[in-house]
Amino acid sequence: MHKMVRTNKQKIIRTLRCKNKNIVGTLAGLLNCMAKAKTDIGNIETVYVGEFYHIRDITVIADNEEHFEEIVAQARKAQNVEIKQIIDEVLELHHGGKIRTVPKYPVDSVEDLQKVYTPGVAQVCTLIKRDPKQAATFTSIQKNVALITNGSRVLGLGNLGPVASMPVMEGKAALFSQLTGFNMFPILLETRDPDEFVETVKRISHGFGAIQLEDIETPASFEIEERLKKELDKPVMHDDQHGTAVVALAAAINACRLAGQDIKKLKIGQLGLGAAGLAIAKLIGKYTNNSVLGSDINEDALNRLERNGGKRSSLEDIMKDCDLVVMTTGRRGLIKPEHIQKGQIILSLSNPYPEINIEDALQAGATFALDGTRVNNLLGYPGIFKAALEVNATAINDEMLIAAAEAIAQSAPEDDPVPDALDIRVHDAVTKAVAQAAINTGVARNIPDEVDVDA
Amino acid sequence: MHKMVRTNKQKIIRTLRCKNKNIVGTLAGLLNCMAKAKTDIGNIETVYVGEFYHIRDITVIADNEEHFEEIVAQARKAQNVEIKQIIDEVLELHHGGKIRTVPKYPVDSVEDLQKVYTPGVAQVCTLIKRDPKQAATFTSIQKNVALITNGSRVLGLGNLGPVASMPVMEGKAALFSQLTGFNMFPILLETRDPDEFVETVKRISHGFGAIQLEDIETPASFEIEERLKKELDKPVMHDDQHGTAVVALAAAINACRLAGQDIKKLKIGQLGLGAAGLAIAKLIGKYTNNSVLGSDINEDALNRLERNGGKRSSLEDIMKDCDLVVMTTGRRGLIKPEHIQKGQIILSLSNPYPEINIEDALQAGATFALDGTRVNNLLGYPGIFKAALEVNATAINDEMLIAAAEAIAQSAPEDDPVPDALDIRVHDAVTKAVAQAAINTGVARNIPDEVDVDA
Repeated sequence: MHKMVRTNKQKIIRTLRCKNKNIVGTLAGLLNCMAKAKTDIGNIETVYVGEFYHIRDITVIADNEEHFEEIVAQARKAQNVEIKQIIDEVLELHHGGKIRTVPKYPVDSVEDLQKVYTPGVAQVCTLIKRDPKQAATFTSIQKNVALITNGSRVLGLGNLGPVASMPVMEGKAALFSQLTGFNMFPILLETRDPDEFVETVKRISHGFGAIQLEDIETPASFEIEERLKKELDKPVMHDDQHGTAVVALAAAINACRLAGQDIKKLKIGQLGLGAAGLAIAKLIGKYTNNSVLGSDINEDALNRLERNGGKRSSLEDIMKDCDLVVMTTGRRGLIKPEHIQKGQIILSLSNPYPEINIEDALQAGATFALDGTRVNNLLGYPGIFKAALEVNATAINDEMLIAAAEAIAQSAPEDDPVPDALDIRVHDAVTKAVAQAAINTGVARNIPDEVDVDA
Repeated sequence: MHKMVRTNKQKIIRTLRCKNKNIVGTLAGLLNCMAKAKTDIGNIETVYVGEFYHIRDITVIADNEEHFEEIVAQARKAQNVEIKQIIDEVLELHHGGKIRTVPKYPVDSVEDLQKVYTPGVAQVCTLIKRDPKQAATFTSIQKNVALITNGSRVLGLGNLGPVASMPVMEGKAALFSQLTGFNMFPILLETRDPDEFVETVKRISHGFGAIQLEDIETPASFEIEERLKKELDKPVMHDDQHGTAVVALAAAINACRLAGQDIKKLKIGQLGLGAAGLAIAKLIGKYTNNSVLGSDINEDALNRLERNGGKRSSLEDIMKDCDLVVMTTGRRGLIKPEHIQKGQIILSLSNPYPEINIEDALQAGATFALDGTRVNNLLGYPGIFKAALEVNATAINDEMLIAAAEAIAQSAPEDDPVPDALDIRVHDAVTKAVAQAAINTGVARNIPDEVDVDA
């Protein structure tokens, strides 16, 4: 398959600052030594060029601390190289956090102060009191997304609690702000009780145009999302469900395209019906207008699938009968090569370890195989929320999610199932498509001039 | 007295874009006409210089809409002037809100993404899970202040509710962020019930290093602040009480200095014992080590004063006996010239209309008089919160508030009772003094290297 960027969730990233003598072959020798420890090399940056030596920062990605120590041990054996320092850039970048709030305009003079603060501000307050709809224009509310978690299911790390989840929240918020120009702010909730969760979000919801739920354990997350959607007239989305489903659908569309198949004509199975798996099965079912077959070891999960239009099945039957199988079981190596049928399309999305390696699936006869390393939620949520805010949507519906998935799929390069998540054009395409879908399905309260209402 | 910048809370600010013929005396003539409507002129900015005409933006501050119409009518009478446009810069500046969240570093490459997001972020989450104290270093939490209101008492405008209070909240947040480099984010609460208020703040408190309460009606604000202080081990401050008290104390210290008196030797009275008045009486009492005499029409307010070390009195007795009288009654013209004693120091702080005009008080024999137009909370809260966060204080105590007041007083120019609120040096001085006071009183959990522990 393609050379994938690993986004393995438990790996560690460090930088070795090396002083290399100016002797031909020194860097090559160093890399040779590091190769003996199976080192995944990132950037190599030349920090200093001298007459007698160079200083180079070599970033490495290690599986764990032991592996990293082995890498360092091997690097120390290299000729004409001195390891000056080991830099933990991840920690350095997290110093003081990753987001900031800033004034939109600097307040530099007394006159500025009179305009953005007292007395000018009173006029804006009374205007909004008289006509509350004006808040969308004259405050940041309609650009603000609350990113809400209780930290009960953070990455693959389980219940870390709200505070330890903050680095993930800040990362998502920083990326959202960068990619959209809108604002996302993390709210850490100290409760695992769905009633308290819903009540608290409702009480603070006025300051935000939309609510993104994040890293909440199942089944609580199902109830929390469902109730907030019903009780708030603003967009609410649990990213681990629907954001993941959007990106998985986009990847599935392109995987089928690259395999020379039309996804709407295939028999589709979903292994694993947790938060992500259930949402994927629902969305692919809706998109293809075919029931997705699902399997899970949890009886409640199977019942939820049936209530959402899917069909219960078993792992064995799905692997035997389906043309496209999407896997989100979280169980490393669950699928053996002998399970794979000739011509199958396999999306083995569990992170950090897939149900079956891409190479093994292809060797066993799959036409196309993809793992979860690049199926990144970052492709979906920024554009989805920006669009929902721009059109002042009452909700995020399936049509908007499907529009997002199609836009992501269409943004991918010809030979690649997914596009670059940092490419701003992808997010612009998603925003445009989702806004249009909101308008077409009647959930948009505000129709910007530049959107084509008849499209 | 000094020429004061008006920060009158119900005035309006507009800009007249005028096309003036290039004839000597045109601008003077225009200003003469406007003077007939008693126009308060702000900036005059030349937008275009042509051979035959100039275009100038003239900012005016009007008392209300009628006054503004009168100003425009007078301006239209000026010779060789055409009013091209009336610009509402206040509304323009509020378009889309006044604050933004931004990433601290742009995420430009796959390697950046791996460091600030997955997989790098998992390492930081597990570090914090293992050692929760690390959250202060590796997240933004210890730089984040929640600015919390239910909008039940906004400026002098009463109960506008949470959404209509947002322009005030964003103004305070924008200014805090600009003046400190730390982050303030508005949280709008939909409840007027103190129990629900306290419960909600506690549930979201983990994402913030400190809590600033704002624009909450009394007496609910007393209970809310008291309970949050007791139940959270982080700084909590109701700015309308203690922020105002700090700036009032600073102004009082300097007013006495300019009147040639030592505030600690004076008999002091406080008229009006609402949120601000009570806090002022408490803080001045603590600072001078003398009971402040207070009067209010509300019996509960008098009882609260007595519980807080003050003495109940009456308006008449205070005006007759006190050397320094601070007024926060919100009642325009309450004090007549015949109430004023020769040599008194008068701080008539109600906004937008003082209890007695500065000029009238001085004419009636006061040695020094000051109104509330420049007694701006903006002088206090940024440095107070920045210091409390930097030293990871468990609380904001009276010693810290007094240190802030002294620092503000010392930052004022020789002949002025208060310094410029936009002067970053004032905020740096407040931060330094408050951090030192926190350390001296044992509420600091973190002592930065550059602070002098023995001071």
